[in-house]
Amino acid sequence: MTAVDVIRTKRDGGELSTAQIDWVIDAYTNGAVADEQMSALAMAIFLNGALPREIADWTAAMIRSGITLDLAAVGKPCVDKHSTGGVGDKITLPLAPLVAVFDVAVPQLSGRGLGHTGGTLDKLEAIPGFQVDMTEGAVIEQLKEIGAVICAATGDLAPADKKLYALRDITSTVESIPLIASSIMCKKIAEGADAIVLDVKVGSGAFMKEFAQARELAETMVRLGADHGVDTRALLTDMSIPLGRTAGNALEVRESVEVLAGGGPSDVVELTVALAKEMLAAAGLPEADPAAALKDGRAMDAWRRMIAAQGGQVDAPLPIAREFDEIAAETDGFVSEMDAYAGGVAAWRLGAGRERQGQPVQAGAGVEILKTVGEPVRAGEPVFRLHTDTPERFAAAKESLAGSWKIGAESAARGPIILDRVTA
Amino acid sequence: MTAVDVIRTKRDGGELSTAQIDWVIDAYTNGAVADEQMSALAMAIFLNGALPREIADWTAAMIRSGITLDLAAVGKPCVDKHSTGGVGDKITLPLAPLVAVFDVAVPQLSGRGLGHTGGTLDKLEAIPGFQVDMTEGAVIEQLKEIGAVICAATGDLAPADKKLYALRDITSTVESIPLIASSIMCKKIAEGADAIVLDVKVGSGAFMKEFAQARELAETMVRLGADHGVDTRALLTDMSIPLGRTAGNALEVRESVEVLAGGGPSDVVELTVALAKEMLAAAGLPEADPAAALKDGRAMDAWRRMIAAQGGQVDAPLPIAREFDEIAAETDGFVSEMDAYAGGVAAWRLGAGRERQGQPVQAGAGVEILKTVGEPVRAGEPVFRLHTDTPERFAAAKESLAGSWKIGAESAARGPIILDRVTA
Repeated sequence: MTAVDVIRTKRDGGELSTAQIDWVIDAYTNGAVADEQMSALAMAIFLNGALPREIADWTAAMIRSGITLDLAAVGKPCVDKHSTGGVGDKITLPLAPLVAVFDVAVPQLSGRGLGHTGGTLDKLEAIPGFQVDMTEGAVIEQLKEIGAVICAATGDLAPADKKLYALRDITSTVESIPLIASSIMCKKIAEGADAIVLDVKVGSGAFMKEFAQARELAETMVRLGADHGVDTRALLTDMSIPLGRTAGNALEVRESVEVLAGGGPSDVVELTVALAKEMLAAAGLPEADPAAALKDGRAMDAWRRMIAAQGGQVDAPLPIAREFDEIAAETDGFVSEMDAYAGGVAAWRLGAGRERQGQPVQAGAGVEILKTVGEPVRAGEPVFRLHTDTPERFAAAKESLAGSWKIGAESAARGPIILDRVTA
Repeated sequence: MTAVDVIRTKRDGGELSTAQIDWVIDAYTNGAVADEQMSALAMAIFLNGALPREIADWTAAMIRSGITLDLAAVGKPCVDKHSTGGVGDKITLPLAPLVAVFDVAVPQLSGRGLGHTGGTLDKLEAIPGFQVDMTEGAVIEQLKEIGAVICAATGDLAPADKKLYALRDITSTVESIPLIASSIMCKKIAEGADAIVLDVKVGSGAFMKEFAQARELAETMVRLGADHGVDTRALLTDMSIPLGRTAGNALEVRESVEVLAGGGPSDVVELTVALAKEMLAAAGLPEADPAAALKDGRAMDAWRRMIAAQGGQVDAPLPIAREFDEIAAETDGFVSEMDAYAGGVAAWRLGAGRERQGQPVQAGAGVEILKTVGEPVRAGEPVFRLHTDTPERFAAAKESLAGSWKIGAESAARGPIILDRVTA
């Protein structure tokens, strides 16, 4: 078998055999297939697509490229959650401890941010002392004791995906349903959970801009989970406007703590509870009431235990950016539109995100939304507050937000957060 | 500008701007765009195509990536020839000295073979002492004195193409008309000739298997030449059966010398004369009679001068393979079919060609066709003679030829060699 033949098959619109897929993933992992060959294959898959059978084989081969965690020792149901990423999406932070309240284990092996969407690890690292690097043994121990872990994924899980993901990023082969679905699911399946709940974002701030695409992605991933005997379900959720009122690392931790204290923005609460219900149902607890656990302090207790277990100083003040600036309304009225993508780019430009892997991020930087869609505002009242340690970035952030939001004459509520649900 | 944006434009079916093309070719040449990015772009061009304007810009950018020869000092019309490559295609060998007879300069900067088609340099290196590496000054001097040069292309001409060509070979992005046309024409235009005559092969032994594809390639190249003020014309010629009676390095030199001596296979003579007429017409000599110059010894004299000028021992015996074997007819009849591709693969497997760049080739190896299409044969009479220094290769060569030729009950002449002609 040669890479040239495998690429040619897909280039010419053919179906890759199981043997071809097994060979090319293995050879790519060990370096016998070069990056320039894999990127040509990725572009051919991007443009010519892949059949469900090919996607299933591709995912299975990527799982086999590395180790698989064995969570049996945890001794309770383990449910994983994954979001395809959006602006202001801090849901993992309140969700993991909330589900752990019900004696369900939540292993969240997470990543860092790249581009306009923030990374869960970057957010948690805003908490002084918080450690994201853990051994497999420590993860299992913490799942047993506390029930929730949010840490860095080890490179030993699906190393083929790690290599391919970095390659796709620089070769414009990211937004392909076969490649996205297999990349997400190979890691999640290798993590060894009993069930997986997916939050598939739709809208300007998400990778999937259109509902039909997002639905196809969700169906593809649910099928891949089922193929591997993992109870997998997905919610399709709105990402046309930012989630909550903050985009930025420490800013989002603060908002998450508000939610864990029983308050916080209603959309963040609604989505956190909806995802918690899916996870608890998948763990055999369809009657559990996560909303109550947010109100009565149990979720906050679990959060404090999780942060402390990973070295975080749970009562230390969060970092604050050195400078801030505001953008005010020019007329009276109601906020009628607010584009998620523009908000994400603004937060990124202020220093909350990175352009290239390995760059540091600013813990305090980001965008605070003082008035969101549906709320009244008067001329001169601030709508956005921008935070950064590097004030020369304000201009670029304002440029990103310019024209991305509108004030109308009448109040209009924002649309629903949860758009659809996909199960096997 | 970023590679990711350029790739995305073409991936999404858009048109690359002149600025994007100039930037990406320059950045690829100097290493700022990585191989894995260029291969993704090449696959996107392969699958989504390119407009004539984009192909023209791409070609111009590749020409500018290196030096351009200035042949003004030669002091006579310079006409270049290029073949897209076929099995048994030794035409450059008799053609260059033949045209030089008429005081027209023929600079043939040639390549080595890869895969089933042989390389002109590999063929000439079968002549003891022949040197293919020459300086620009030596090329100009020889063109002045003798009129014909066949030597290696310098890496200083279109280095972007040199890099991209090697990349396409390992990423299944070879058979794309925009990429083939620009690759051929950037080198030919950089060589600085006043006119270019193209031999575009069609059939199983060629890159272009179908007439319509080959015609499109020819039209694209003729237009690219005209864009750069170079009189460019193309013949479309048959490559469904091997050209002449030999495929292999020394074997093809021997056949070329037969043609220069006024004999040789009629198809080789016909094509050599037809291409010579095009080249001479492009040089302003439409009345010249190249067929006469083959018959009367003038072309042979020019050949001997060219070989001697490049160090070749013109009267030394050519290398002969250590072993030979034959394939005989099983029934009486007429050879009715003979597949060019199979013949090329057989010669390659016998040692005449290479699998990877840089490998040596056997000077004596190859296939001799004792009976070609239209000729009568008796059961037991040999049809092919196989030559190699490594007899363990006979089996693989025979496997390639098995089923690739047929004997019919009635004589059928082979079809025409020259299928069509394209001019600006």
